[in-house]
Amino acid sequence: MSIKQGERALLEQIRGRAAKASSSGLRLGIGDDCALLRLRAGEELAVATDLSIAGRHFRLDLHPPESVGHRTLARGLSDLAAMGARPLAAFVSLGLPPELVQNANRREPWIARFYDGLLALAESCKTPLAGGDLAESPLAVADIVLVGAVPHGKALLRSGARAGDLLYVTGSLGGAAAALARLAELAAASKPAKAQPAHQPLTIPKKLEALLAPHLYPRPRIAQGLWLQRRGLATSAIDLSDGLSTDLAHLCEESGVAAELDAALLPIHPAANLAQALDGGEDYELLFTAPQGARVPRAIAAVPVTRIGRMLRLRKGRPLVALVTAQGSKPLEPHGWQHFS
Amino acid sequence: MSIKQGERALLEQIRGRAAKASSSGLRLGIGDDCALLRLRAGEELAVATDLSIAGRHFRLDLHPPESVGHRTLARGLSDLAAMGARPLAAFVSLGLPPELVQNANRREPWIARFYDGLLALAESCKTPLAGGDLAESPLAVADIVLVGAVPHGKALLRSGARAGDLLYVTGSLGGAAAALARLAELAAASKPAKAQPAHQPLTIPKKLEALLAPHLYPRPRIAQGLWLQRRGLATSAIDLSDGLSTDLAHLCEESGVAAELDAALLPIHPAANLAQALDGGEDYELLFTAPQGARVPRAIAAVPVTRIGRMLRLRKGRPLVALVTAQGSKPLEPHGWQHFS
Repeated sequence: MSIKQGERALLEQIRGRAAKASSSGLRLGIGDDCALLRLRAGEELAVATDLSIAGRHFRLDLHPPESVGHRTLARGLSDLAAMGARPLAAFVSLGLPPELVQNANRREPWIARFYDGLLALAESCKTPLAGGDLAESPLAVADIVLVGAVPHGKALLRSGARAGDLLYVTGSLGGAAAALARLAELAAASKPAKAQPAHQPLTIPKKLEALLAPHLYPRPRIAQGLWLQRRGLATSAIDLSDGLSTDLAHLCEESGVAAELDAALLPIHPAANLAQALDGGEDYELLFTAPQGARVPRAIAAVPVTRIGRMLRLRKGRPLVALVTAQGSKPLEPHGWQHFS
Repeated sequence: MSIKQGERALLEQIRGRAAKASSSGLRLGIGDDCALLRLRAGEELAVATDLSIAGRHFRLDLHPPESVGHRTLARGLSDLAAMGARPLAAFVSLGLPPELVQNANRREPWIARFYDGLLALAESCKTPLAGGDLAESPLAVADIVLVGAVPHGKALLRSGARAGDLLYVTGSLGGAAAALARLAELAAASKPAKAQPAHQPLTIPKKLEALLAPHLYPRPRIAQGLWLQRRGLATSAIDLSDGLSTDLAHLCEESGVAAELDAALLPIHPAANLAQALDGGEDYELLFTAPQGARVPRAIAAVPVTRIGRMLRLRKGRPLVALVTAQGSKPLEPHGWQHFS
């Protein structure tokens, strides 16, 4: 794609590719002032936005463009999953330096590979790309908007956990942090002898793809969130984007309860350590609570579910979140990702 | 606000202020994974996103932060207006350098003044701020998402204009471009002797406020778009964000028709010239078509409406858009704002 064709040519190309992922709710996609979407009777709307910034949420010299596209969409889909909403449509606003839009040496431009990754996940999650914006920017930024639908009053909230509830998590913990650490090592080891453009991403060796996947291509837990919402089993839910220690603190604050994690029960990813499981972030698993006696299965849609702790009354002198190990109980501070801190 | 309080403290403060602008549609605002919104029976959803980037859509050394906030929201509201949708909620994702979030010399931080401007317009347009994202970024960026509602099948589209329709515009043209030119002069004249931080905006003299308002504080035409949608008068509509010559070309392309503008009829802003009226952009007026014989009033909700041309069949050798003057007819090329061109 030549930069001279202008924004409209680029939009035309994206429009053609975005139309492939279909949704019964999308009436009018890219091309007008707004996209038009329809809900089913008795549904309300769930909307989430997440901003990704080069150098902070992704690195042009590290992440394959397909991974940046995938991760951008995964962040938004994971927010819908945490509410138990079904995805209706995604919107992505991109600010990009011209060299990421231009063809260089007959290679596919960065932006095309970004959309490859984003649209592959969109298709597998039946989420059409319905619009967005594109602007020239000295810094690469991507803002994702997800619009979903959930039956009136049935959304899973952060604020519904009660003392006595049990605490569960899907999948495993720390895999994304362990993969990121491995990716950083790989980048340090493969510093090219001659200077490369800063936006030339690392080539990932085939044999490392599976190991790095939890970081590069996380799977948002849409099916698991929908299952929990439909069964009415969960009293609260949040997705693990900032890290278990931070996101569990958010859940406790919004619900007005405390929590106790049992270290021995944590489903730590085989490649990860305890610190990565507690503080790593970007696992995009679902953390949820359910009353004692609720029939929470061992797996939902082929993803394991593990009980990892319980909710307690807030009490003076009791930490918001405690970690129980063989050595006893100690306060767990939120050490995950926080902006501006 | 101290940067050490972290993202949550900042979100708490915004949450408190955002709650003031109420909407019957907003069930759950800032604080959970998603916001929840409800439509009325028979309505569908309109969604628009617009990315604003420092140095491209606004300048930290030129625009008062209140204006950046106002303009960010106005861009999104104007997209809803062009569809004839009523605003339900806005979401803003902000990427900001730390110095725009911190208190400097006991002055209000940039971000607080940004929200002052954004929330003032939100309140006057009854549009609650329902969520968003906040991240540290070396470059200031703001992505706005507007969610609106419109009765099923009643949205004003770009694609509905027919040959024979008459072409109308609200308000006046070129005022924003004229004001921007004046603002740039003012900035050049007032270069401070000693160096100021790059994010220290210009102080606008009181007597220039009215003159600069079309650029700094444009009014999105929500009431006019709603009126047109409810009356079913317009066959197509678009908002003037990129400039009349460019946006009219978009309307023609999407509708598959040509257009003829009558230069003598253009409601040029008193401070503007013809070039600014044709190519200036950011006027955020509504451009719409209606069948001959439709009773289009001279004003809608106290804003003048002017007939400025007509739609023609696409024909070989005929320009997509022509400008008719006393000297005859000539092709009008789209010379407004285009990214990546």
